[in-house]
Amino acid sequence: MLPASPVKKEPSHEGHGNLQNRADLHTLFYPKNIAVIGVSHNPVSGIKYIKAHEVSGFPGGLYPINPKYSEIDGRKIYPSLDAAEVPEIDMAIIAVPAPNVPAVIRDCHKKKVKFAVIFTSGFAESGREDLDQELRQAIADGPTRVVGPNGLGVYNQESRVNFLFKRSFELPGNISYIAQSGGTTARLLMSLQTIGVGMQNAVSAGNMLDVSMADFLRYFRDEVKTKVVVLYMENVRDGRDFLAALRETTRVKPVIIWKSGQSDIGATAARSHTGSLAGSYQIWESALRQHGAIIAENFEEMRDFAAALSINQTLPNGNRIGIVVSGGGVGVEITDVVRTHNLEVPELTLETQRKLAEFIPDINSSFRNPVDLGEYGYVPHYYGRALKIITEDPNVDVVVTVREPERSPWFEESMNIKDIDNLNILALKIAMKVGKPIYMNLSPNSDLPEHHSLRYAFRARLIKEIGVPTIDYTPHVAKLLQQLVRYKKYLQQYL
Amino acid sequence: MLPASPVKKEPSHEGHGNLQNRADLHTLFYPKNIAVIGVSHNPVSGIKYIKAHEVSGFPGGLYPINPKYSEIDGRKIYPSLDAAEVPEIDMAIIAVPAPNVPAVIRDCHKKKVKFAVIFTSGFAESGREDLDQELRQAIADGPTRVVGPNGLGVYNQESRVNFLFKRSFELPGNISYIAQSGGTTARLLMSLQTIGVGMQNAVSAGNMLDVSMADFLRYFRDEVKTKVVVLYMENVRDGRDFLAALRETTRVKPVIIWKSGQSDIGATAARSHTGSLAGSYQIWESALRQHGAIIAENFEEMRDFAAALSINQTLPNGNRIGIVVSGGGVGVEITDVVRTHNLEVPELTLETQRKLAEFIPDINSSFRNPVDLGEYGYVPHYYGRALKIITEDPNVDVVVTVREPERSPWFEESMNIKDIDNLNILALKIAMKVGKPIYMNLSPNSDLPEHHSLRYAFRARLIKEIGVPTIDYTPHVAKLLQQLVRYKKYLQQYL
Repeated sequence: MLPASPVKKEPSHEGHGNLQNRADLHTLFYPKNIAVIGVSHNPVSGIKYIKAHEVSGFPGGLYPINPKYSEIDGRKIYPSLDAAEVPEIDMAIIAVPAPNVPAVIRDCHKKKVKFAVIFTSGFAESGREDLDQELRQAIADGPTRVVGPNGLGVYNQESRVNFLFKRSFELPGNISYIAQSGGTTARLLMSLQTIGVGMQNAVSAGNMLDVSMADFLRYFRDEVKTKVVVLYMENVRDGRDFLAALRETTRVKPVIIWKSGQSDIGATAARSHTGSLAGSYQIWESALRQHGAIIAENFEEMRDFAAALSINQTLPNGNRIGIVVSGGGVGVEITDVVRTHNLEVPELTLETQRKLAEFIPDINSSFRNPVDLGEYGYVPHYYGRALKIITEDPNVDVVVTVREPERSPWFEESMNIKDIDNLNILALKIAMKVGKPIYMNLSPNSDLPEHHSLRYAFRARLIKEIGVPTIDYTPHVAKLLQQLVRYKKYLQQYL
Repeated sequence: MLPASPVKKEPSHEGHGNLQNRADLHTLFYPKNIAVIGVSHNPVSGIKYIKAHEVSGFPGGLYPINPKYSEIDGRKIYPSLDAAEVPEIDMAIIAVPAPNVPAVIRDCHKKKVKFAVIFTSGFAESGREDLDQELRQAIADGPTRVVGPNGLGVYNQESRVNFLFKRSFELPGNISYIAQSGGTTARLLMSLQTIGVGMQNAVSAGNMLDVSMADFLRYFRDEVKTKVVVLYMENVRDGRDFLAALRETTRVKPVIIWKSGQSDIGATAARSHTGSLAGSYQIWESALRQHGAIIAENFEEMRDFAAALSINQTLPNGNRIGIVVSGGGVGVEITDVVRTHNLEVPELTLETQRKLAEFIPDINSSFRNPVDLGEYGYVPHYYGRALKIITEDPNVDVVVTVREPERSPWFEESMNIKDIDNLNILALKIAMKVGKPIYMNLSPNSDLPEHHSLRYAFRARLIKEIGVPTIDYTPHVAKLLQQLVRYKKYLQQYL
């Protein structure tokens, strides 16, 4: 659907100019073998990377390194990189104390290690500018490309390279996540997983002394399994190159960005990093928008936007929303939210209203927009027919429908409908065939543990079977749609 | 803590001037007997009110009325109000077709029924101005005071007057809710119940041809079991009287208002009602704020604010927030949110920082503000001690702490701590003794059904045992605190 980038590739990084950036990062996400330098009996030492890869079922070679040990819990420990029984090492994870890191990087250069991932912290972010300078010099002196320092490293659902625990490998996905802070990476992986959405790649990029956010953006732009790029950023060293990479990427696939530093304190922290682009959050936000990014203002928005775009990427042709509910109050509520985000709630055609009136009785119902189907909205047969008619209305670009999965058992009983959730999914499938995007707001009603399970199961089934994005918090639906309308316009400049 | 209202009471309503407004509404919420006019075999007829009161265990007399039946499902049906074997009727619920309602109101006058609650819709809201006028005239002609039409009626947790199902009676509470739309009433009751918060009174007030929002506000202002008033409003007939009642109430107890019509469509709907105060949402919002209301922008905010103020009403002495987290990323995130809502994140005193450094190791921790306790924040003994020290800091007015209940089992196992949730609650109890408000943000991490149960149980226990408000969605914490700081200043004008 989207054209390949018309932008000519410029060299994106000063150093390592002789390496093909693209091939490079593929090896980072698909390493054949991994050395971990700095393993000990301490569970937070490099041994945790060994364990993480054992647990995830990493199929390649694992080489734990520490000259002080020959064995830890039955694992053979190698005294050095050179001693590892492998001609070439794709990735070395470094977990030695900060003052020793530059020397280890020089060892990596000698061994022609393709990538070093530095977990160790204690450089510029801790005020140690001296160590930072020494590390930069060491990085510049050889062929090994470096991720970090002060980052958790790399995750790939397929290759099983990771820094996490087993659960995160359950689901394949199409999201690639670049985070400047390790904490959100685990949080996003887990949080998406629980709503049935998997991640393809993730990188906790740390201080980015070598491989930059721009490098990752360009890699994910071309990586075929990535359909959505999600970025958590605190600051940027080379703002111009970053924005260029962003522009190149947003023309090819959506990029969701959560930028911290919205407050003065956050901004001050960002400015204190050498080389970061100074400027307020407002300036940044405007620049990111102009380069086609979809902006999330907090973690929850980032998660909801990422899940939605992972599930369905049909962009709306305009900002006219058809709203389908059961119950007048919720109709007013969602209309208010949609309107305050500059989206239209147009009247439906008389033809649509007539078609609805043919089979939906005029009891507590309304066929204008928002359409209130009353209790008939809970009868899947009526619901599906109505949803399709509304989706087909020429005045409508997107349909937003409110649903409360926890009500299904009640309606199953009171209306004697068997298998109501599956019938609802069938109803949605019919409406989806019209080809316009449909979003579902799972309006919170009652949220007991048993209701949560129903909601969870309904959502997971919906995602698997049909691809309707579900969003719980009503304002997020409107905020995302507002930005997708803008993104569509942005793309049209290049079509 | 708060003074009684210094405002002289003015007659609040033109009609029924001879009735004591206050004594009146008490009977509405504590009726001894209820007649339901318009019961039939149709389950959505008045029979649903009979069933609702049977299910809730209403201890008073129930008199179903319909001249067409003498019996429905074993219940005796009376042909008329006069035939009911009771000298005085406190409440008549009217569920007859709209054209018959005025005549039934005149019957109520004759029988000297204290309150009529009109469930029937089909008056001004459906364009039937003729019926509306006829009903107004009928109401004006006698002593019966009228709630509605087009409303679900009245709920009281103690007296068991209600329009709902059994579950909503599980928990007593201190919230009184006035809603201009029936749908949100059930939703708020259920939604609060599931986080362990009960409601004391609720009224779905409908078109308010007689008893107005101002009447309900004044009643709840003086009703001793009400500690928080929550209001969902669409439009107001007598804006001046409403704002006067609001001002009188906010001086005595907090009033949370969710006003719909934030968009043009909502505003147009409000204006189309005769006598409603015209004007944009912005004008309304500003007026409500100036009269001391706490503004919720949507259902979820209303629910979170209501729950928080139901649990703890200690108002902050200022806007300086102490933030206590485990994990740097979440600290930056919540600081950003807090700062963008005009709250301060002050440096803690050197004394506080020194005290923390005495027992919290300097590993992935930070003793400035936000305070990051690292993994030690999950050891209840350390957590409680740190929380108390930070709460005592003279630079801090409010403490916000992030917690993820689903992590507890993991830390129980990895750190061999028994009964971690109870120990955490003990830790909070110690810090609460300082007397400053503490809010907990239950940051979403992973939300599997089993995690949801843990979260639910933790929250319910916290509410019962200690009174720490918990809010899941981070921005809501900051939005509420911003308004509580403002509310405190508003109150100080009258102290």
